[in-house]
Amino acid sequence: MDVLLHSLDMAAVPEPELVCIFGTGDLGRSLGLRLLQCGYRVVYGSRRPHECGPLPAGAEVMTHTAAAQAAGLIFICVHRDHYEFLEKMEHLLQGKVLVDLSNNLKKNMYPEANAAYLQRLVPKAFVVKGLNTLSAWALQNGLLAGKQVYLCGDSTEAKQAVAQMATKLGLTVLDKGSLSAARELEDFPLKLFPEWRLPLAIALGLSAFFFFYLLIRDVIYAYVENGNDISYRIIVSLANKVFPIVSLIMLSLCYLPGAIAAFLQLYRGTKYRRFPNWLDRWMLCRKQLGLVALGYAFFHAIYTFIIPIRYSVRHKLISTVVNEMKENKTTPFYFDNTEAWGTDSFVALGILGLFLFVLLGLTSLPSVGGTLSWREFSFIQSKLGHLTLFICTAHGYIYGWNKFLRPATYKWYTPPGYMLCLIVPSVVLVLKLLLLLPCVDLTLTRIRQGWERAKPGEEMGEMKATDL
Amino acid sequence: MDVLLHSLDMAAVPEPELVCIFGTGDLGRSLGLRLLQCGYRVVYGSRRPHECGPLPAGAEVMTHTAAAQAAGLIFICVHRDHYEFLEKMEHLLQGKVLVDLSNNLKKNMYPEANAAYLQRLVPKAFVVKGLNTLSAWALQNGLLAGKQVYLCGDSTEAKQAVAQMATKLGLTVLDKGSLSAARELEDFPLKLFPEWRLPLAIALGLSAFFFFYLLIRDVIYAYVENGNDISYRIIVSLANKVFPIVSLIMLSLCYLPGAIAAFLQLYRGTKYRRFPNWLDRWMLCRKQLGLVALGYAFFHAIYTFIIPIRYSVRHKLISTVVNEMKENKTTPFYFDNTEAWGTDSFVALGILGLFLFVLLGLTSLPSVGGTLSWREFSFIQSKLGHLTLFICTAHGYIYGWNKFLRPATYKWYTPPGYMLCLIVPSVVLVLKLLLLLPCVDLTLTRIRQGWERAKPGEEMGEMKATDL
Amino acid sequence: MDVLLHSLDMAAVPEPELVCIFGTGDLGRSLGLRLLQCGYRVVYGSRRPHECGPLPAGAEVMTHTAAAQAAGLIFICVHRDHYEFLEKMEHLLQGKVLVDLSNNLKKNMYPEANAAYLQRLVPKAFVVKGLNTLSAWALQNGLLAGKQVYLCGDSTEAKQAVAQMATKLGLTVLDKGSLSAARELEDFPLKLFPEWRLPLAIALGLSAFFFFYLLIRDVIYAYVENGNDISYRIIVSLANKVFPIVSLIMLSLCYLPGAIAAFLQLYRGTKYRRFPNWLDRWMLCRKQLGLVALGYAFFHAIYTFIIPIRYSVRHKLISTVVNEMKENKTTPFYFDNTEAWGTDSFVALGILGLFLFVLLGLTSLPSVGGTLSWREFSFIQSKLGHLTLFICTAHGYIYGWNKFLRPATYKWYTPPGYMLCLIVPSVVLVLKLLLLLPCVDLTLTRIRQGWERAKPGEEMGEMKATDL
Repeated sequence: MDVLLHSLDMAAVPEPELVCIFGTGDLGRSLGLRLLQCGYRVVYGSRRPHECGPLPAGAEVMTHTAAAQAAGLIFICVHRDHYEFLEKMEHLLQGKVLVDLSNNLKKNMYPEANAAYLQRLVPKAFVVKGLNTLSAWALQNGLLAGKQVYLCGDSTEAKQAVAQMATKLGLTVLDKGSLSAARELEDFPLKLFPEWRLPLAIALGLSAFFFFYLLIRDVIYAYVENGNDISYRIIVSLANKVFPIVSLIMLSLCYLPGAIAAFLQLYRGTKYRRFPNWLDRWMLCRKQLGLVALGYAFFHAIYTFIIPIRYSVRHKLISTVVNEMKENKTTPFYFDNTEAWGTDSFVALGILGLFLFVLLGLTSLPSVGGTLSWREFSFIQSKLGHLTLFICTAHGYIYGWNKFLRPATYKWYTPPGYMLCLIVPSVVLVLKLLLLLPCVDLTLTRIRQGWERAKPGEEMGEMKATDL
Repeated sequence: MDVLLHSLDMAAVPEPELVCIFGTGDLGRSLGLRLLQCGYRVVYGSRRPHECGPLPAGAEVMTHTAAAQAAGLIFICVHRDHYEFLEKMEHLLQGKVLVDLSNNLKKNMYPEANAAYLQRLVPKAFVVKGLNTLSAWALQNGLLAGKQVYLCGDSTEAKQAVAQMATKLGLTVLDKGSLSAARELEDFPLKLFPEWRLPLAIALGLSAFFFFYLLIRDVIYAYVENGNDISYRIIVSLANKVFPIVSLIMLSLCYLPGAIAAFLQLYRGTKYRRFPNWLDRWMLCRKQLGLVALGYAFFHAIYTFIIPIRYSVRHKLISTVVNEMKENKTTPFYFDNTEAWGTDSFVALGILGLFLFVLLGLTSLPSVGGTLSWREFSFIQSKLGHLTLFICTAHGYIYGWNKFLRPATYKWYTPPGYMLCLIVPSVVLVLKLLLLLPCVDLTLTRIRQGWERAKPGEEMGEMKATDL
Repeated sequence: MDVLLHSLDMAAVPEPELVCIFGTGDLGRSLGLRLLQCGYRVVYGSRRPHECGPLPAGAEVMTHTAAAQAAGLIFICVHRDHYEFLEKMEHLLQGKVLVDLSNNLKKNMYPEANAAYLQRLVPKAFVVKGLNTLSAWALQNGLLAGKQVYLCGDSTEAKQAVAQMATKLGLTVLDKGSLSAARELEDFPLKLFPEWRLPLAIALGLSAFFFFYLLIRDVIYAYVENGNDISYRIIVSLANKVFPIVSLIMLSLCYLPGAIAAFLQLYRGTKYRRFPNWLDRWMLCRKQLGLVALGYAFFHAIYTFIIPIRYSVRHKLISTVVNEMKENKTTPFYFDNTEAWGTDSFVALGILGLFLFVLLGLTSLPSVGGTLSWREFSFIQSKLGHLTLFICTAHGYIYGWNKFLRPATYKWYTPPGYMLCLIVPSVVLVLKLLLLLPCVDLTLTRIRQGWERAKPGEEMGEMKATDL
């Protein structure tokens, strides 16, 4: 650059590079605007060059044929349905790089990927599939900085040319290999929360189970045994039992696979054998499990805050006082210090648990997690996560501390919901405690550093990367 | 690079590039530190080279003249007021790249942009305006990764040289064209939430209107008709009526322009004609409208949570009981099952609406939104958004379900606030329902794919990019 | 590129670059996968090339010796404990670039940095330390876009080669200088919230002090003087006094150093002298101070919301009514309008303060703060910050508005906690008010633009960058 800088005054200004865009729709126009901003010259190819509406200032418009002749790289911003015209100008496209940015409205709309179809129409062009995750909106508003895009194609040079251009637009490029990956790339913008499906299914399943379980135990039991219609409790009281139950179980499900994996490694005596598929899948959706659990905890918190403004609660409070007065008791309201300690601890643990839970959720924000060192992230997600689980489980135990020995608790011989929901968290905490025993912990650390029980001393030098 | 790597042992080590910085203030020092970290050699130009305080280790200090001779690229980190000295050394700056990083304290402080003034003083230098959005603080703390900066200038080579350097510093560069854009770049760090002004103005206007409307209907009415002084209600009760009303109206205003745009496209039969300016402006501030509405919803939620700890609420509860007892009613507190269902549903819908609203707000965080695919983002902002609006509107309807037929509701023949606030959301939901009718939806989808009613069959191949 | 594009059809396809990875552990495999995705060829060096488990498709495995001969750049993904084998193949590694990615489990585990040890073993290789902050997990999942990594090494060319490769992987590289920085880089992944230690220590110290202070004043006083056991108040009532007190003091501690710095600059008449170290350190942890204060405010808010569902609060409410009735008072519940205004204002100010506090916290999220212009950031953190402090302080003053003249307030001649906690915020607000006086403000602005009282007229042209 030094040379460049010192010779600026005398050098002839080189022409900026020319790229061609077929199609003058939203995407074509936004892409052209952005290319012009980054110092390229842009020429549009259009069927009706004179009637194609407002284009970015500085761009030229020509017929498809003229535009294709002018440039070596052509962005195809036309719907797949209209690709046929490219076949007719095949001779002009020979040796050119065609970038297929198209997406479909549904998966499997066509038997082959759009880019594969394009390559078949124009076999002598170098088709590169990619950049199809960009929206016209992001292009126009310059929201590309650091965004990751994918490329695939059979020609390495063509991909390099496109990658270089994408880098100039401020994008980060990831090469996904040959053109056979085109379908994967085309499906990418169509995916709808694939990693959330399993956690949401678990949450819905658990919610439905506990809803009906509690409906039977609370509302139907009261109606059948005492003839009381307390169906109004379904909306708030029952929901506020389901939410914490599901939240606690899902939180513990975040930490169960880690414990299982650790015991599996201890049992196998090596970390070099792959985990079973179900465990891998489970571990990959821990973040989503945790966030769904946080959503349920949010509902639990807010449902708790509004308890005192409910009609039925106020009614009960007033009737208590009125009945009290009518019966003219003398020592009606003995203040039970143990009860006060118990309920206050219960509430305080719940609040502390919520706070830690929110903290866990905040660090799972990409921009917050990205600023943490690996040890910090691991501290928060492992140490703080297990502490949160412990506190929330304690919150559950205190809830039942003075109830579990009353016969009235076991309506129709069924245990109450909060007992059921304590099983999984208790198991996870016991497993974690076992793993913290010095002898177990030491063995596990050695295994994770590459030690193997079967062939000690050999090939133990591989580097541990994470032991989340 | 292969060649480079294999020849490392024999090649003479090339000198790293030298850049010059005029000015040893905060910005000059931070920029120099960063350039040194990225492998450049740095020389400072100063009027008093021997008394300019602590500079980054490894940097040299010289007089302006000596420094200017040493390097081909000079960063000007001096206030515009002191640019005159550059005119005197014009001959030395000939053909050099001068990067003007200066900002002003106010808009329109000077008749011409700082960079234009600099170019006028040193006409034979290549002035590049840019990087002026960086703060010394961000430079010192290495917080630049992926940050977008703007450049403009009349020399493409000079801009390329600066862009290359900025890329090495970890920045993403966006070229804004010729030096005439310098004023725009200089105004950039001075802008103060321009996109928030309209939404905040709407929010304040609506708040003021409903505040006075409710003040008259509630407080003044009670004083005039019954002589009651219930002015204490202004701070919490009245505010907690204004907040949900404004929140719901503003939320519906987020979704109204989308519906209007759809009907406009249906009416015109094409998507190729621009929307009127007011609609464009409205659509661009939807995110801000939504976030202001979320702020009001936040206030509504917290004002609701603290209802039971208010003095007046506790007072009313106690007086109810006491009065009840004094009058010695026999069946004082009939438990109204319908009322319990009604209030509980009201509360539950409100909580669900708040949850969805918070979810919408979270996905509008740049780092969260950036991880979503286009379809996911569209699903959340459109489907989930309309669901949120529907649930919040239902929350409003249930509030009035058993009141709208009572004459006492229409004080001084005016409708209560909650009725007024349901108008806009109801209209938006009806419009959205119409747009979901299969025949309408089909036509709209075709229009958005490029079909035009006027000239069917022609030029319909442009690619749809987004239909948010 | 134009040339490249036009000649694609005839040019011989150049071989992609080959890199070598020693070690087939998690990190080695993930790094190889990523390098393959970015268009490199990868060869692994392993002790047991035939038994090293599943490697990324497309990578070759050889013995260490064969692999080292094939490539010019070798990533060392082996534990430091196993570096000795590299010494034996020293002649093969001559002139090669060795990238040391290793981390240690603890600080100061070894007398010298891993990279320095490696360089000592293989003195003729070019050792580059770096990329050690990457986790295998982030590499595998392509979460690298824009992530900042550090490099250090004694050879500029070797560093450039690695930097170029890292840039292709989507990383942003920051050069930290010679190999002597290796220890710093190795300590980086081990750091555990260093910038949070001081704020957390202050928070814990303040919490402990006020907890015991209030314990003595409230619980022990009641027990000693009246024999009342109100120890149940410790968990919720006492905590809910400690939280707001500590939160307010810590919020004011965020803004105190700025005021001190301003007065120091005014006193010195220049901005060119460094602040004392304690002030620098204090200013650097303002963000963390504020976020800890926000955490305490969060607790305060939630503890307040659950007040009415506490056993002791409901008990007190019921006993009040019952006692009231038993004593048969005639005008038992005079409604005090002033009290209603006072408590409602108190609550409303608290909610407003919380809202502004949350807003401040949101803008401190990296992804939100990054979208703000410098003026916007400064507006929020300075103007809005001081407003938040003012409102929270007013919230504290209103709490005590009708109590500070009652003798019962000064139990055992000690002032109540809320009085103590108002001292620091009041001081900060008074200092800020003084700084806003036009004459003071003007002088300060001039000083921050580079003016010096001692030597007016000279060297005043340095550019102000931030005056946060």
